[in-house]
Amino acid sequence: MTPSERFERVRATVRPTTIIDSPRLKAALGVDVVLASETLQYTGSFKFRAAYNLVLGVSKDHFITASSGNFGQALAYACKLAGKRCTVVMPSTSAKVKIEGVAEFGGEVDLVDVGSKSRAERVSELSAEHPNAYVASAYDDDLVIDGNSTLGIELASYAFDYVVCPVGGGGLASGLILGLKVGGSPAKVVGAEPAMANDAARSLEAGELIRNVTEPQTIADGARTISLGDRNWEILSKGIDGIFEVPEARIAEAVRLLFSLCNLKSEPTGALSLAAVVENRERFSGQKVCCVVSGGNVDPAVYAKMIS
Amino acid sequence: MTPSERFERVRATVRPTTIIDSPRLKAALGVDVVLASETLQYTGSFKFRAAYNLVLGVSKDHFITASSGNFGQALAYACKLAGKRCTVVMPSTSAKVKIEGVAEFGGEVDLVDVGSKSRAERVSELSAEHPNAYVASAYDDDLVIDGNSTLGIELASYAFDYVVCPVGGGGLASGLILGLKVGGSPAKVVGAEPAMANDAARSLEAGELIRNVTEPQTIADGARTISLGDRNWEILSKGIDGIFEVPEARIAEAVRLLFSLCNLKSEPTGALSLAAVVENRERFSGQKVCCVVSGGNVDPAVYAKMIS
Repeated sequence: MTPSERFERVRATVRPTTIIDSPRLKAALGVDVVLASETLQYTGSFKFRAAYNLVLGVSKDHFITASSGNFGQALAYACKLAGKRCTVVMPSTSAKVKIEGVAEFGGEVDLVDVGSKSRAERVSELSAEHPNAYVASAYDDDLVIDGNSTLGIELASYAFDYVVCPVGGGGLASGLILGLKVGGSPAKVVGAEPAMANDAARSLEAGELIRNVTEPQTIADGARTISLGDRNWEILSKGIDGIFEVPEARIAEAVRLLFSLCNLKSEPTGALSLAAVVENRERFSGQKVCCVVSGGNVDPAVYAKMIS
Repeated sequence: MTPSERFERVRATVRPTTIIDSPRLKAALGVDVVLASETLQYTGSFKFRAAYNLVLGVSKDHFITASSGNFGQALAYACKLAGKRCTVVMPSTSAKVKIEGVAEFGGEVDLVDVGSKSRAERVSELSAEHPNAYVASAYDDDLVIDGNSTLGIELASYAFDYVVCPVGGGGLASGLILGLKVGGSPAKVVGAEPAMANDAARSLEAGELIRNVTEPQTIADGARTISLGDRNWEILSKGIDGIFEVPEARIAEAVRLLFSLCNLKSEPTGALSLAAVVENRERFSGQKVCCVVSGGNVDPAVYAKMIS
């Protein structure tokens, strides 16, 4: 199956990204910026593109993943649509809204007390119990990257100089790099990473994959990854134009800007790209910039505090 | 100029409505409902459709209006695009974000102490000072209704049984009735009104236009109108299928549902339509329903309180 055939298969179901052109945002930043919002994507984030492509591309009918966030919901819904089974290992301390999200989409939630057993250990146990199940990574998987590339193919139809995206495990950035190339766009992909979770920036500088010792507790919970995935690093190390490191306060500021100037609800991770542009306006001056707002799933109390 | 020519002229600039299909919302309500969101429209509400059509259709180059809300911002931006002048009379007690909104779009804000002079009086004064200016109503104007009808024409391309919309002055509802007809849709238009500002429901029942004595202080500030406009009543009295009266608590509940199940930021007035469907699920059972979310401009503190 060619990339464009896969794109067509996924596109038949995923929601096209929502391009938002906000005159007030442009004026406030002095940058010619538009948003590509995945907050209105099915399950509320770009991860549905990955999950759906994965579930269609793997012949197994049971998927297991460890996720306390968007990939769990996305995989659950993708499996529901495909008539497959899905088990999501989540910390027992996960926010209620996240557990409900997975369950409402038909996923089986497997709660683990991470004080006594890691999520990875629990996934291994489940994998041994269900030898025919597919253990899914949220980013380090060719089908996941391929699914995300559908967003890059969509964005290739616009004349952007830069596409800025959040970086956690690197699934979105690597998908965008591939997709923009497939779509024939010369746009450069730039990553945005929390400064306190800057393993990707450090990896690029060192020329080798560097891992955090523990998950950094940034407010951008989608970027609390130990490191880029191996497949993602392979693509990013050659294809990304740079990574901006964003202070925590800028992330909250970007969430507020999206709320007040664009009427857009974003989760903190989703606002990383705009935060990077706010932090580096001069760099993007005179350029046509697209900020990918990767998702909108955020706890109401966290969000309420952030916008007040 | 025919309706379809006007539609094409406005459509060249307005943003198409954002159709949002949320599986979680459908499941939670047990109703086959989608959203038509105008929160991402230019200036954050459907009012830009009206204002832009008005500014293009009137040959005068100065517009005066009284608005503490969405119409002021919409008119200011429409005038900016058309190279015209705009004066917006606002109460001196208006929220800072609303005054800033008008000003950022290039409107001249005229603050009036409503304790000593009504907004209507101030508009009369300004009109006398500027005899060549056009005094614009936010709803009771054929060009305004026509502009709003572009949304109805867009929605006519879907097979909806019902289109539910907020009702304040009746500008949106009357535009939808006309636009759906122009577009050849048999969909019925149903209004949603705060129970504490139920002048439209009472008017329909009485068969004549009934006015509130004072502006009702509903949380849905876009529906704090004294009555429907005369032109709007003319259209609604013949063309609307009914008006639902929505308790205040349902409005807040609908804002929360849009936030948590759809990742959609809505102002309270924008959530009236969904609130009406939540309140009357059985009525809409088995029907294909479209809820128009008319706008998203809401004070952050008010919103934070509502979602917490």
